[in-house]
Amino acid sequence: MDYFKRFKVKDILNDNIEEYEDVLVMGWVKTFRSSKNIAFIELNDGSSLENLQIVVLSPEEFPLDDIANGASLRVEGYLDKVEGREQSIEMKAEKIEVLGEAPEDYKLQKKRHSFEFLREIAHLRPRTNTFSVMNRFRSKMAYAIHKFYNERDFYYIHTPIITTGDAEGAGEMFRVSTLDLEDPPMNDQGEVDFSQDFFGQETGLTVSGQLQGELLATAIGDIYTFGPTFRAENSNTSRHASEFWMIEPEMAFCELDDMLVLMEDFIKYLFRYALEEAEEEMNFFNKWIDEGRKEIIQEIVEADFGQITYTEAIEILEAADEDFEFPVEWGVDLQSEHERYLTEKHFNKPIFVTDYPAEIKAFYMRLNEDGKTVKAVDCLVPQVGEIIGGSQREERYEVLKEKMENEGMDLEKYSWYLDIRKYGTVPHSGFGLGFERLLMYLSGMSNIRDVIPFPRTPKSAEY
Amino acid sequence: MDYFKRFKVKDILNDNIEEYEDVLVMGWVKTFRSSKNIAFIELNDGSSLENLQIVVLSPEEFPLDDIANGASLRVEGYLDKVEGREQSIEMKAEKIEVLGEAPEDYKLQKKRHSFEFLREIAHLRPRTNTFSVMNRFRSKMAYAIHKFYNERDFYYIHTPIITTGDAEGAGEMFRVSTLDLEDPPMNDQGEVDFSQDFFGQETGLTVSGQLQGELLATAIGDIYTFGPTFRAENSNTSRHASEFWMIEPEMAFCELDDMLVLMEDFIKYLFRYALEEAEEEMNFFNKWIDEGRKEIIQEIVEADFGQITYTEAIEILEAADEDFEFPVEWGVDLQSEHERYLTEKHFNKPIFVTDYPAEIKAFYMRLNEDGKTVKAVDCLVPQVGEIIGGSQREERYEVLKEKMENEGMDLEKYSWYLDIRKYGTVPHSGFGLGFERLLMYLSGMSNIRDVIPFPRTPKSAEY
Repeated sequence: MDYFKRFKVKDILNDNIEEYEDVLVMGWVKTFRSSKNIAFIELNDGSSLENLQIVVLSPEEFPLDDIANGASLRVEGYLDKVEGREQSIEMKAEKIEVLGEAPEDYKLQKKRHSFEFLREIAHLRPRTNTFSVMNRFRSKMAYAIHKFYNERDFYYIHTPIITTGDAEGAGEMFRVSTLDLEDPPMNDQGEVDFSQDFFGQETGLTVSGQLQGELLATAIGDIYTFGPTFRAENSNTSRHASEFWMIEPEMAFCELDDMLVLMEDFIKYLFRYALEEAEEEMNFFNKWIDEGRKEIIQEIVEADFGQITYTEAIEILEAADEDFEFPVEWGVDLQSEHERYLTEKHFNKPIFVTDYPAEIKAFYMRLNEDGKTVKAVDCLVPQVGEIIGGSQREERYEVLKEKMENEGMDLEKYSWYLDIRKYGTVPHSGFGLGFERLLMYLSGMSNIRDVIPFPRTPKSAEY
Repeated sequence: MDYFKRFKVKDILNDNIEEYEDVLVMGWVKTFRSSKNIAFIELNDGSSLENLQIVVLSPEEFPLDDIANGASLRVEGYLDKVEGREQSIEMKAEKIEVLGEAPEDYKLQKKRHSFEFLREIAHLRPRTNTFSVMNRFRSKMAYAIHKFYNERDFYYIHTPIITTGDAEGAGEMFRVSTLDLEDPPMNDQGEVDFSQDFFGQETGLTVSGQLQGELLATAIGDIYTFGPTFRAENSNTSRHASEFWMIEPEMAFCELDDMLVLMEDFIKYLFRYALEEAEEEMNFFNKWIDEGRKEIIQEIVEADFGQITYTEAIEILEAADEDFEFPVEWGVDLQSEHERYLTEKHFNKPIFVTDYPAEIKAFYMRLNEDGKTVKAVDCLVPQVGEIIGGSQREERYEVLKEKMENEGMDLEKYSWYLDIRKYGTVPHSGFGLGFERLLMYLSGMSNIRDVIPFPRTPKSAEY
């Protein structure tokens, strides 16, 4: 029988403890120093960045030979307060059991490893400081998202992962199939016969839950999705992953201006949540990843977001005394350099840019009275440019139908999408936020592979 | 300019309002009755099951001709209290604008539709009472899950959807590929050359996040997943979907008995949450889907879960005065009829059955001292049998390696999984709960297609 209750390191360090309280802790050795008369073990169990210092007063009585960095221990002892140190609680060991040794070929020895190296051992990197911090941070921010929307009576919707449509009308999709690749069934026209595939048709991995989200919003009001989305684009950059999580709120009875209020609230809520509820993690990022990161985040929390139209943005950019790589004129899509100029130099705060040319935006965005712009919005923030994009949706049946026809879309295939405009249509709006982009922004991490536990990118799907 | 603030129906009905307060509401017409001198509109905006009754005192002054079931309206007016009715708040219309008409071919006319019919118009069914209730319920229970684990300092992990492994060692997987099906690249051996596929290898959709979850648990302690999982099994039953969401907690430093405490806490927390925080939805299910459902759920909340070993279960079943379809003897897997006998008739409460024969369980479960059973557990509940399955994991490197070899698994491919036993291995345990099975159990819905917004099943992946 155990007479000791197991405590997590985090709770020991945070809680007010009784001196000499008996506890049981289990964890992994972070550092180990030993001399004839005393030994020190820094133990971590994943509950926090901080370790618990374990003091071994009679080293010869304990099985210290098997202890190395990475070994797992079960330690009984009592807690002790130490005056005058930052970390004021330590544990005096009374019994140590080695649960699992860490042989010498353990790749995580005590030294700083490059992120490139750690990506190659992504199954072990959660045991390092940076990635344990990142995984806890990711979890906290995911919870913040659910909390934000639940507090506002939004309903969380699981849109399908396997789909037949392509919400962007552009993004390359992964095919999902159970057909025999070596000998697929063919039809009379000599094409692959997808009617014999698992779902009786050609299917792929979703690029966005928006279209299905609209169906739900125009039934139960305010909804949000938070799920994995996919891009089969062969772009090996530090900002693109083939599999990533996206948050897509969609609101019925909501026009563009109403949505801007929500977007600003949302960003500020998440940023404030990071600073207040993930303080340990943000301090870590601020110290080790990007000095000054907390200040950037704090400034956004306190800012009044600006708002201009695309047309105004073009005017500002044309008047700017800047050498842009990509030329600016009405009709072009804004490049990162343009977005950053606007938010960093001209306004020096986050801004919403609205009413983009219809030509450069997706078919489902609501056409303005001018006949050439749509109710699209991008939210621009310093250092990266666009962080969120959204729009008021085209809710007029005839207008939407004509736009879809002009794009050459198969109206029959999307009849369900048109139906919600045919029956009881309502103004509605929504936006999308890439979860990994959010994490990169908050943490200052520069590679998307380092904010996902097991990243999927071209030629890489290990674990 | 709007001088009226938009209110949600739910907030109007729940809040204490000022009499004669001016409000703006928007929603869909649920019923509409009109006479010469007065008209009544039941309006619903998806925020609750209950409608807001709108009274039109001078029908001739309003555009009532365009109003039909399913039409969307924008209504300004003032709130009024009505004595002696269950629904004590109504709205007197001052201005009505028809946002979207609902032509006569609208398929959701006011009558009860069969669930089969509604599955065929799954894009419109969220607008019915049953499915708006179900979608709100699904959202609330998803939040309950996140809340439960966050309150216990578990970290939420996104395990990969696209994988190269197969956690169950059995389940059929969907292939994910961008190869040209009509003309895939072949290697020298005449096989499809997956090295030329998007990820440089053959990949599929995950059947479980467990193995990756173990990597995280043995780094940061207590984690849980909550994400989509897939089965390419061609089984067209009311309880199987090809795409479903699963919750998989995994705890380091946790043995089987510790986990049973968590499992019981978890089930009771969710069931209590449903009764208390989703009262409207549970009342609806109790009235329209399965009378007495709330009582079953309440009994489980109050029960002390029992615990027996598989061997004891077999003894009980062999001694039972029952005609089982499947014969019982030590070594067979328990069928639903056996499970239900145990939980419904013999114990009359939920029970944990532990220590199953190694032969019928997965390779990763921890082998007991007897050499023939493993630390597996199933939680059985009345009416369905198993609702959760889990196990303590085999943490001993040599034992696990031998089991994997015996199963003919590719050790090289799973070296990452073995590595966490090689370096600082610790006892750990985890379980899995199918989210849709939970929703079916709580609601009494008998077909899994009716608890998922857009179900994916063999030959069906619409929308």
